[in-house]
Amino acid sequence: MQSRKIRMLTETVDSLLQRGARTNLQKLLSKSHAADLSIVFRSLSGSETRATFALIDDVEKKAEVISHLDSELQGRLLPTIEMDELVAIFSEMSNDVAADAMGLLPEELASELLSRMARTDSLQVEDLMEYDPDTAGGIMSPEFVSLSEDTTVQKAAEVLRASDDVAMAFYVYVTNEFEQLCGVISLRQLVTSAADRSLKELMETNVMRVRWDTDQEDVARLVARYNFLAIPVVDDGNKLIGIVTVDDVIDVIREEATEDILKMAGAGQDLEELRSVPSRVASRIRPLGYLFLSGAIAVPLLHGFRDMFNSNLALIYFIPLLLGLGSTAAIQATTYMSRGWTMGVIRSRWVRRQIRRELYTSAVLGVAYGLGCGLLAVLISGWALGLVVASAVGLGMVVSTLIGAALPLFFVRFKIDPSLATHPMVRMLSMVAVLIVYLLVSSTLLWCRLGG
Amino acid sequence: MQSRKIRMLTETVDSLLQRGARTNLQKLLSKSHAADLSIVFRSLSGSETRATFALIDDVEKKAEVISHLDSELQGRLLPTIEMDELVAIFSEMSNDVAADAMGLLPEELASELLSRMARTDSLQVEDLMEYDPDTAGGIMSPEFVSLSEDTTVQKAAEVLRASDDVAMAFYVYVTNEFEQLCGVISLRQLVTSAADRSLKELMETNVMRVRWDTDQEDVARLVARYNFLAIPVVDDGNKLIGIVTVDDVIDVIREEATEDILKMAGAGQDLEELRSVPSRVASRIRPLGYLFLSGAIAVPLLHGFRDMFNSNLALIYFIPLLLGLGSTAAIQATTYMSRGWTMGVIRSRWVRRQIRRELYTSAVLGVAYGLGCGLLAVLISGWALGLVVASAVGLGMVVSTLIGAALPLFFVRFKIDPSLATHPMVRMLSMVAVLIVYLLVSSTLLWCRLGG
Repeated sequence: MQSRKIRMLTETVDSLLQRGARTNLQKLLSKSHAADLSIVFRSLSGSETRATFALIDDVEKKAEVISHLDSELQGRLLPTIEMDELVAIFSEMSNDVAADAMGLLPEELASELLSRMARTDSLQVEDLMEYDPDTAGGIMSPEFVSLSEDTTVQKAAEVLRASDDVAMAFYVYVTNEFEQLCGVISLRQLVTSAADRSLKELMETNVMRVRWDTDQEDVARLVARYNFLAIPVVDDGNKLIGIVTVDDVIDVIREEATEDILKMAGAGQDLEELRSVPSRVASRIRPLGYLFLSGAIAVPLLHGFRDMFNSNLALIYFIPLLLGLGSTAAIQATTYMSRGWTMGVIRSRWVRRQIRRELYTSAVLGVAYGLGCGLLAVLISGWALGLVVASAVGLGMVVSTLIGAALPLFFVRFKIDPSLATHPMVRMLSMVAVLIVYLLVSSTLLWCRLGG
Repeated sequence: MQSRKIRMLTETVDSLLQRGARTNLQKLLSKSHAADLSIVFRSLSGSETRATFALIDDVEKKAEVISHLDSELQGRLLPTIEMDELVAIFSEMSNDVAADAMGLLPEELASELLSRMARTDSLQVEDLMEYDPDTAGGIMSPEFVSLSEDTTVQKAAEVLRASDDVAMAFYVYVTNEFEQLCGVISLRQLVTSAADRSLKELMETNVMRVRWDTDQEDVARLVARYNFLAIPVVDDGNKLIGIVTVDDVIDVIREEATEDILKMAGAGQDLEELRSVPSRVASRIRPLGYLFLSGAIAVPLLHGFRDMFNSNLALIYFIPLLLGLGSTAAIQATTYMSRGWTMGVIRSRWVRRQIRRELYTSAVLGVAYGLGCGLLAVLISGWALGLVVASAVGLGMVVSTLIGAALPLFFVRFKIDPSLATHPMVRMLSMVAVLIVYLLVSSTLLWCRLGG
């Protein structure tokens, strides 16, 4: 339903652009939500984006649209805007968004922009630019409401009323004389409490917080687990320096999900950075390397058994079956195990139970598909080959599954970043393993037959 | 940092359980957050879970722990609890959580439980159980604050004060005489407005809403896009029936991410339902079927060219390389395209641009790895084979990439559910394609050489 709405908006913008219907386009833009426009912008070309953006008549709306754009589009659009307008737009943005966007600009442009922004804003933006973008500091907003312990409810409400630049104030944070975080009170509690009580009486003192250098994924996990709307960020001395709000957490979770999917498939890490051909090539060449490596190992392996193949050519017909089933089984196990890992805590007992179940699962599947492949082999060249293929495929699937299930555990045990293109690596290992299984099983069985 | 905390908690619970230190365990449980305990429970056995759960001394805490458990654990734990306690626990839960949990109980147990709960609660729970769990109705909470248009700010604050069972009231919804949604006002606006103004004067009338049957993914996308804290759910007559809050949206996003990853790898759909061996087998057998199918097609294909292989046995050494590189290239393209799709809107111009870039990318990678494989072939058996392998691998990678890039588009065009184990299906298609390319290229080149 919603995607239809966006598609219609995109098509209308497109056709108005083609027809050069500026006034109508302008009207449409002013009626549309900034978040929707940012999605439309994704499917416009560079010049169309510039033309459309220029027609948005309100600086605040422009700032909002920019905030919703992904960084690649921001990086392309921002340098094309004139300095005066850029200053106006950046002044409308919240400072954490401004800091992120500023990081995408050429250095000269950024420093000129900073020098022309209001002093308080530019100082804060510069501060924020210091943090690693993947940490609490990098995603936090420096705009929050903090008050001292002896503030009354009435006074707190007045402060809130005055601070309308704080976009999402659900909690009022209470700090002591050293600006250290010592309590929190929800907006709701504030509404429902007597006007003359002090924050100290009402506040919750056990406040969950994160340090500025906490990884953004950990921040997201905390907020998700405890159903927070925001979590305060403190510096090394427990001084409150910002808050991470739930909407930023949602962005982190979505971003990380895409990253996980791309990484697993060996297709890169970041959708935005992968637009150009050179970056696609760069992100894919290494994962392909794993398959090249295993394929290259297979060459001398198969070459070593050339006499066997020469006298039993039908053995080669089943290599694609063997590789396909083996590597798929391995990937299924790896995906299941590593996802189970992400979702919870792993104890050795859990691991043993999982490995055991994977073993049984692969045994059942190995018997089923082993028999299927064996039957094919019987049809092609008789019972002997049928036996070889059935045993090799069955055993190969079990070995592959166990390799796939164990790999995530090795990653964790040896603190290896599991981002190393899991699927291609699993396929590499399982390919080599099933080929060795196949060669050993077939040569052994054929030798027994010759012997018997 | 956080996962260490949970791991320590798990280990402590474990060792206290082993030592039978009931009193200490009880103390630890009462100190720990329900969300943390729910994660600990994931790695306990059935009997350990029951024993630990029984030691939680507070019914409210028990209800909270249950709410945080995933449905598989809920389904195992709940039927072991005595009816009296079950009634107490369900009465403490919010009704949307109760409805979800109720659906996991055996029918008899559920109806006895319903009959013993307070009338208002049980009616609401029964209503909620009617909705499809994957829709707005299935994830909404029926507990929200709605008031009529002429309510004053002062009166609204009083109502809020009285309704402390509404967990997350950030918005007050305004309804007309027919209970139809006609406006919304934020808690923050309420705090900062004069006490004698009416909601009608202050409310925002353009309220984004979803229907009860909207897919939960669409709900999540809306909330994420517009940074809402909650979105109202209406019935067919625009009557307000519930709200979906941002914490539920986070759960949906995380759940869908896991589902995407498992589906793509052909490892099932739902982590929770995949615990037992039979369900693992059931979810994996079909994706493996794609590979079986392509492998089975390969058998007569290779058999058909047996004379060529007989006189050029070295050709078979490169089949694993060819299959591995080809299918990886296809999966990389598919993952990139389908993820790009999920994140935005696709126009035919976007598609053409993407396909073109995939073509160039695969050409570069095909030349690189084609040369690599060709070199290996030269070393093994001379220039003729080198030429064959280099051309076949290069061309195979290009064809595979295009198949991988086009597949998500076909899914969308023909409205096929892309959940059909994307990766195994892509591997099936690319495997058959690269084998055909290999056989055609090698037979043509060898024929030319014989002819020349």
